[in-house]
This record gives sequence, C-alpha cells and structure tokens, in this order.
Amino acid sequence: MKNYFSSSFRLGVLGGGQLGKMLLSETQKFDVFTVVLDANNEAPCAQICNEFHQGDLLDFDTVYNFGKQVDLLTIEIENVNIDALDKLEAEGLTIYPKPKNLRVIQSKAQQKKFYRDHNIPTAEFNHYAYLEELKHSYENDIIEFPFVWKAARFGYDGNGVKVVRNIVDLESLPAGECITEKLIPFKNELAVIVARNEQGETKTYPVVEMEFHPEANQVEYVICPARIANTVATKAREVALKVADSFDFVGLLAVEMFQTENDEILVNEVAPRTHNSGHYSIEASYTNQFEQHLRSILNLPLGNTESKVAGIMVNLVGAEGYTGNVVYENIEDILKIDGVTPHIYGKTITKPFRKMGHVTIVNTDINEARRIAQKVKETIKVISK
Amino acid sequence: MKNYFSSSFRLGVLGGGQLGKMLLSETQKFDVFTVVLDANNEAPCAQICNEFHQGDLLDFDTVYNFGKQVDLLTIEIENVNIDALDKLEAEGLTIYPKPKNLRVIQSKAQQKKFYRDHNIPTAEFNHYAYLEELKHSYENDIIEFPFVWKAARFGYDGNGVKVVRNIVDLESLPAGECITEKLIPFKNELAVIVARNEQGETKTYPVVEMEFHPEANQVEYVICPARIANTVATKAREVALKVADSFDFVGLLAVEMFQTENDEILVNEVAPRTHNSGHYSIEASYTNQFEQHLRSILNLPLGNTESKVAGIMVNLVGAEGYTGNVVYENIEDILKIDGVTPHIYGKTITKPFRKMGHVTIVNTDINEARRIAQKVKETIKVISK
Repeated sequence: MKNYFSSSFRLGVLGGGQLGKMLLSETQKFDVFTVVLDANNEAPCAQICNEFHQGDLLDFDTVYNFGKQVDLLTIEIENVNIDALDKLEAEGLTIYPKPKNLRVIQSKAQQKKFYRDHNIPTAEFNHYAYLEELKHSYENDIIEFPFVWKAARFGYDGNGVKVVRNIVDLESLPAGECITEKLIPFKNELAVIVARNEQGETKTYPVVEMEFHPEANQVEYVICPARIANTVATKAREVALKVADSFDFVGLLAVEMFQTENDEILVNEVAPRTHNSGHYSIEASYTNQFEQHLRSILNLPLGNTESKVAGIMVNLVGAEGYTGNVVYENIEDILKIDGVTPHIYGKTITKPFRKMGHVTIVNTDINEARRIAQKVKETIKVISK
Repeated sequence: MKNYFSSSFRLGVLGGGQLGKMLLSETQKFDVFTVVLDANNEAPCAQICNEFHQGDLLDFDTVYNFGKQVDLLTIEIENVNIDALDKLEAEGLTIYPKPKNLRVIQSKAQQKKFYRDHNIPTAEFNHYAYLEELKHSYENDIIEFPFVWKAARFGYDGNGVKVVRNIVDLESLPAGECITEKLIPFKNELAVIVARNEQGETKTYPVVEMEFHPEANQVEYVICPARIANTVATKAREVALKVADSFDFVGLLAVEMFQTENDEILVNEVAPRTHNSGHYSIEASYTNQFEQHLRSILNLPLGNTESKVAGIMVNLVGAEGYTGNVVYENIEDILKIDGVTPHIYGKTITKPFRKMGHVTIVNTDINEARRIAQKVKETIKVISK
C-alpha cells in the first residue's frame, strides 16, 4: 500500500466548493496533503486546503497542468474538462472517478442509454439533438403532454429540468440537446450512495428519502433511513449497486431513484461524487460519505455505512428577497436543540435559493427527528444584513 | 448575539497543535474565521487555519500583539504568557478561558490550594519552593516514603510527575518548586469534561475511565462510559461541575480524578481546554468536545454531551527505537474493522512516545469496543522509514 498519511503524497481535487470543504475535514483527519483547483479564490476550500490553485475547471490546459502536479486526482464537481483527464490518464495519472464514467454521467442522454444498455430500470426516454427535433416529434404525435424535459448537459439542482404540460411550456424551453421522459407518478424520491474501490469492494449506504421544496425544486429534507418497506429498501440498494458495478465505478456514486406507485425502483440520475443526500452521514453514520470517498479513491478498505442514529438533513438556502452579506438569523435558537448541527459553507454572499449550508438533526427516534427538522426549518433564516 | 458565522469576526487561538487542528474542523464547520499563533510554522494548524502567525507563546510582546488582531482569544495549550493576557483583558479583549483561571491552573501548587480553599476533594499535599525544602522536610520526618512528587509548573503527560520511594529517587529530582502528595491507592483514573459558557450554562460529559501505559505514563485507552457504578459516576460529575463553578470557568475544563478504594472521588488536576480524554467524543457524542469548546467560548447554547454509542480512544504514540519520517504501519488493517477511525495529527517526524495521532473505536457494545481497541493497539505501529 502507498503511504498516504503524513507523507509527500499529493491528492488533487477539481472543485473547491462545499463538498470539497467537507472532504477536507477528512483529508485533515488522515493528514493527506490536498491540492484544490477552483476558479474562485474565495471558494470554501481556498483558505483551508494545503495548496490552492485558481483556475477554470473547464479549461483543458488548466486542468491538465494541475493534474501534472498531483499523485492522484479526484473531483468534487463533475463539470470539468474531461479531455484533459483523458490525456492525464493516458500519461499514467490515476483519476477516480474514471474519466470515461464522468463522460457518460456528464450527459443525461448518455446516462439514460447506459441504463438501457445495462438493463438498469429507468423511465422511458427520447433523445433530441436540438429543441426543434423535440417540437417536430410533438407535432407528429410521437410524444404527448405531459412529459419531463431535461437538458442533456450541466443540469444542477432543478436547473435544466422541467415538466412540460402544454405548448407554452414547450415554446419556452432552451434550444439545445435534451431528453424527454414519461412523467411517472411516484410515491417517493430515494437515493442510495454506493462506495466502490479499485479492488471492487463495495458498500451501500442505507436508502434515504428526499422531500423537495415545491417551488425551488431543491431538496428540503433528506431522511435516513427512508420510511419505506424493507423489501423496497433492499431493491433500491441492489439497483444502486448494479449501477456502480455496471460502471466498474471507483469512488462514491450517488444514485437517485423513484419509487413508483407499484413499488418499482427507477433510476433517475447519478452523481459521481459525494452528494447532498449523504450529508446526514457526518453525524449519523459510522463512516461518513467524505471519509468513505477518500477510502474508496485511495483503495483503502471501505468503512461501515450503517447509522448510529437516525439522521435528517435540512438544506440552508438563501431566503427570497435577500441578496448580500449573509446572516444566519436565529441560529442560536436551533443550537439549543439536542442533536442539531449546522454546517455553514462559508459563502459570504447570500441570494435567493443559494445553498449556503445545511443542518443535520440526529435522534434515536426518526419521528422526533422529523419534528425537530420542521422546527429547524421554521426557525433559522438565511438573510442578508 | 454577535454574528460569528461567515462574518468578519476573528477568533484567535494560542497554540497550533493537534487540539487546535481538531478545533479547526469545527470552526470550519461553522465558518468562524480562525487565526492561530504557534512557534512552529509546520504545526498541525499552520496550513489549514484561515490565518497563521508564527511566534513564541511565552513571549509577552508576541502574545500581546497577536491578541490585538483578534476579536476573542482562546487557547489550545495552557503554557502561554499570562501577563500579556492580563493586559489584553484589561484593554477590553474577551479571553476564554480567563487569564486568572489559567494562572491558577498553570501552577500545580496554586491548583491544589484552590481545591483546598473551595472544599474540593483532593489528595493531601505539601508545597515546596525548592527541592532543598522538600529534602529538609524528609530529614525532619515531616513526610515519608512513598509519596508523589510533582513539578509545580509545566508538567505534561507524565513529565514532571514521579513516585518517590526511596532516597535515591529523592536525590534525582529536579531542583525547582514542587508539591508532594500522599500516594493514594486507587481503583480507577477517571475524567469528566465540563463545558461552561459566559451565562453560566453548564454541561458535563459522561465519566471516562483511563488506562495508562505502564512505562510511558501516557494514557493508553480512554473508555466512555467508564465501567463504574452509577453512584460513583454521578459523584464524579458533581465534583467536576463544582470545580468549574468554583473557577467561574468559561470554556472547556477537563477534570482528572481518582476513584479511591473506598469509592471516594479526589481531583487530581485539571486542564483548561479540550483534552485527550475527550477525543472519543468526535465519533461517539452528539456534540464533540471541540464544537462544545467553540460553543462555550462564543456564549452559544451548549450542545448535548451524551453519547450515541460507546467510544474508546487509543493514543498513537511513536514506537520505541524509531525516530524519523513517520509511517503508520498496518493502518489499512485497522481500517478494515467496523467503527474504527484513525486521526493523524500531521507531525512528519516520529520519536519514541511522541503523540502522533489517536484511533477511536465506537460500538454499541462497550465490551466489543474494548476487544477491538486491544486489536487496534496490537496491529498499528508508528514507525519511521
């Protein structure tokens, strides 16, 4: 085994946002020297990593030159220049997750084809190179309202996803490459995080249940364990594992799924990294997702994914009507409640619906945790001064 | 309440060692801007705090000038220049723990007098300005062998403590100020961490039990909860709380105690800060000691001190016979065990008995945790390459 701990080994991370910041907590714990690239020199990681490089994650030369200065490269955001990763990998650099996986995952169309080709259950879809093709398809009665439209690339947190119910919705869509899916009524949105290392050892985290904010289309509560039947949970973990194995994935893979009204599991999409749906794990799990990510990419034994206690995560997003220097109003009131831990990402400017942090609520009783989560949500407010 | 989160507030920390490093994990979580002073620019905190200053913690001007650049000052090591703190406090700076508490705690003689003056149970003692006074006392049959000798100042981890059984032991003692205590047979060494904030809110952590390495006189296992009767645990928490209240303490106070053969509790000594005996809390407690320290000095509500699971901490100290660049031999084998988390402090050079890290073992069953702790201890070895 390589010596990663207090050694000259250099771990490179593409992206310096909040996921990177929470990863740094773990690289610090293991004393793994970490070098971060981000376009913003005020990114959450900038001051607290061992070495920070400022540069554009989508620029070939920037990513390539950065990769030449590290011993192993990983990501905290998937929108990076993959051509540079391919070249670095060809030249011998270990990159996890693998560039070929990132290429598939960056494109929602390729993702969907991948699921179809590997017999992974997913909603039926169509793929269009341009919006005009989609319109043509509609005019020829090949697809019907309502359907779900997704931009093929760079969708994030509800951007790039739209339910299309009528011709006005259709006309307002962006022009580029897209997919459409049948609008499937579902009981629950679920997620399973799979960890997989180089030698193919795998672990799945318990199934979490996600509740979305009705307007912002961002996750409002993530609840672990999901309050679903064991048979459904088992099926969801199996499907998630099958996705990771099909990719021959190394790293953390967050698999978002629908539980249909018939208790079928359909894969919605995946993220090739630590994920919002796994933040509860910092307080609730034996091994949190950030430590697990590190273990998986360094080919260390994977840690126990089970929970010590039930966990619920509430996103802290900027309140509507406030833009400017952030203030976490009433944070002292939520700190009074047992088992409540705020995580502040370190963004100085708030704006409506911007992810500024999250709060984890842990409790031995999941129903009590859910009540506290609601109270937390109603108490703390992310405003500006 | 002051706005500490993602604000211009600057928290100063005197000392940049492993305790500071683990505190930084929490200041990062809350995005509290943290400025650290340490003599060593390769100290564990140096690269990962928001702002690092290199300088001598015992130098008046260095500490004073550092204090002028922060909004609130705390410590991670108690051996700092207190005259500088007094002046800073007189000029309006908030310093927690309070300089006057630090002054008492820095001196074992003053500590013991403090306990006596406040009716806090502690072993009988004598105080000597010089070793010659002690020898004189022995020659005049005022004290008898065996007794415990302690240097009055700057003892740490067994340095400055010695059991004196005969005249040879007596002759070999250092010349300076010291105290002696009756050698009291005890069943257990216990510790309780108390958190207390400015408004006098207090919380005590569960009692932990310490097992010492027979030669190095360093803690080998810290076991939480201590395997003692509830009545003894309750008494230990009450005594610890009384110590903190007597000091009118603000911050974290680790109270080390003996459980005598008659189940009496005697205070041994205190540390005015986060403590080795509380490291288990990172994995086991609802609120770990580092977050709690931050809550207490910022006058935030204190968090829940109870445990999610049983926790045992094993110190990782440099193996005898090895000095040089550190290697954590067999670390991958301990990572295979469920509930095992290594913490690597980031010191590049190991030497015999140097504290290089610790490993936490958590489990719902404390006896199983104890078995695993032994296995961890027997497996991982801190050597040099």
